[in-house]
Amino acid sequence: MTVNENVNENHEQSAVSVIGLGQLGTRLAQAFLGAGHTTTVWNRTAAKADALAAQGAAPAADPAAAVAASPLVVVCLPDYPAVEGLLGPVADRLRGRTLVNLTSGTPQDAARVAGWAAEHGVGYLDGAAMSGTRLVGRPEALFVFSGSEDAFAAHREELASLGNAVYLGGDPALAPVYDTALFGLVWGALAGFYHSVALVGTAGVDPTVFTAVAGEHMSFVTSLMTEHARQIEDGVFPDDDGTVEVHRAAMDHLQHTSGSRGIGTEVPDLFKSLLERAAADGHGTSGVASVVATIAKGERNV
Amino acid sequence: MTVNENVNENHEQSAVSVIGLGQLGTRLAQAFLGAGHTTTVWNRTAAKADALAAQGAAPAADPAAAVAASPLVVVCLPDYPAVEGLLGPVADRLRGRTLVNLTSGTPQDAARVAGWAAEHGVGYLDGAAMSGTRLVGRPEALFVFSGSEDAFAAHREELASLGNAVYLGGDPALAPVYDTALFGLVWGALAGFYHSVALVGTAGVDPTVFTAVAGEHMSFVTSLMTEHARQIEDGVFPDDDGTVEVHRAAMDHLQHTSGSRGIGTEVPDLFKSLLERAAADGHGTSGVASVVATIAKGERNV
Repeated sequence: MTVNENVNENHEQSAVSVIGLGQLGTRLAQAFLGAGHTTTVWNRTAAKADALAAQGAAPAADPAAAVAASPLVVVCLPDYPAVEGLLGPVADRLRGRTLVNLTSGTPQDAARVAGWAAEHGVGYLDGAAMSGTRLVGRPEALFVFSGSEDAFAAHREELASLGNAVYLGGDPALAPVYDTALFGLVWGALAGFYHSVALVGTAGVDPTVFTAVAGEHMSFVTSLMTEHARQIEDGVFPDDDGTVEVHRAAMDHLQHTSGSRGIGTEVPDLFKSLLERAAADGHGTSGVASVVATIAKGERNV
Repeated sequence: MTVNENVNENHEQSAVSVIGLGQLGTRLAQAFLGAGHTTTVWNRTAAKADALAAQGAAPAADPAAAVAASPLVVVCLPDYPAVEGLLGPVADRLRGRTLVNLTSGTPQDAARVAGWAAEHGVGYLDGAAMSGTRLVGRPEALFVFSGSEDAFAAHREELASLGNAVYLGGDPALAPVYDTALFGLVWGALAGFYHSVALVGTAGVDPTVFTAVAGEHMSFVTSLMTEHARQIEDGVFPDDDGTVEVHRAAMDHLQHTSGSRGIGTEVPDLFKSLLERAAADGHGTSGVASVVATIAKGERNV
């Protein structure tokens, strides 16, 4: 017997269907199974579905069968055109179900597919997996969703089996916006981290030894973010965490130390240039969170 | 009576003396007092000491009296030359005591003052306050110390009243090296954060609303750091968290989205350039932590 003979019938027989079994889609299906939800799976090449069948999933014969099998349909494909190409022909079968789209895309993509879903009576949630694939199924894996609040409420339990499932609001474009923004946040931290590892390396400090201390410092970083978000929202930048000028002087020191020890200075160079532009914008004696105004107005206006 | 008449005598009468009562020094003295340690204070201008006297500190008449008052002497001055100028004349009184220097400086500064302290029989710890002034005295305020392990062991309890007191090792230069590196780490996260706040702002998302989600994501960032430190130490870069090429493509998207929404692209520009250089260094299909090698070798070798 090939796996594809083991088809689902055209009535609901599982809690959730996962369409698209790449690295992330496979982990999603495993997380649903791990939380005890009956799971139907479909992938263009059957080998991925075979592997999941051995873990308890029910492979569907085709996308139509996969959609028909569950009230909750999760898709995770390479891009939005792939989603539209695959689901367009089975739109009628999606009617009345919830479609959760974890494909990576733009806010425009999300708005377009949400509009299509609305036309066909499909409850739509756009989503993004923020914590890579390794942590899927663990409570610290962040998933953000936006779109139909009713759909999120109806399937909160299933979605929570993927990790920390956060509903952002009714605008389906919010999930890709957060996705993109959080990627930038993670990268800022990683760039600072890689630079600091290279710097302590010049003093013979091992990466893991440094990171044991640096990791403890991240709760301080998070507390700064919370405090600075409030300042940005109020447009008031007290100097409790240092002024732009004080940080610029300290950045001089980081830049100089990095250069004199022979490592790249591109990371402190950027931060110093941001601080210099914030000072030029009149924020020299403001708290450092005022840098956000310099970024927000864009380089073209400098 | 002026405060300076309320002098300490030349025998130990307090647990700790704090010399230099700027914003940080004042908070240090308050943290020692708050933890129940008798505290002597001295500052060049007496008004700062007056304010602390009202909170239970004993003002000293001069640096010699401040040094003589306690087995643990904490200095926090504008720079190392100020420390050397102030303590040089009272070196004999420091003999047999522990000097903890929380003044900001370079690894060279720390090595020089540590050498001077050793010559005069002074137990020396170089230190850095990593969490600004606001959190001093709370367990999440990180303080790093390096130098005499005996001195740290003898005064661990007093130092723990400042926050999370971490001993880095015997080389006194370690504290300023960590200080500089951790500053870069914090700034990476802040630059990424400010950029992401500016980006979600273009979609009408308030900074505090975004940060409620972003803050929850920081534990993932910390787990990435821990994982990547191990990879860097082993020199093995698996693709579990995405390859350099995959991140570069995603960075294209962040850069494009930022530019098309009218905010500055300098932050994604830097990250993209790091990723492009890592790819040029042959790491395109390696895990993203391989970027550290590109930073470590410096721009001059590109």
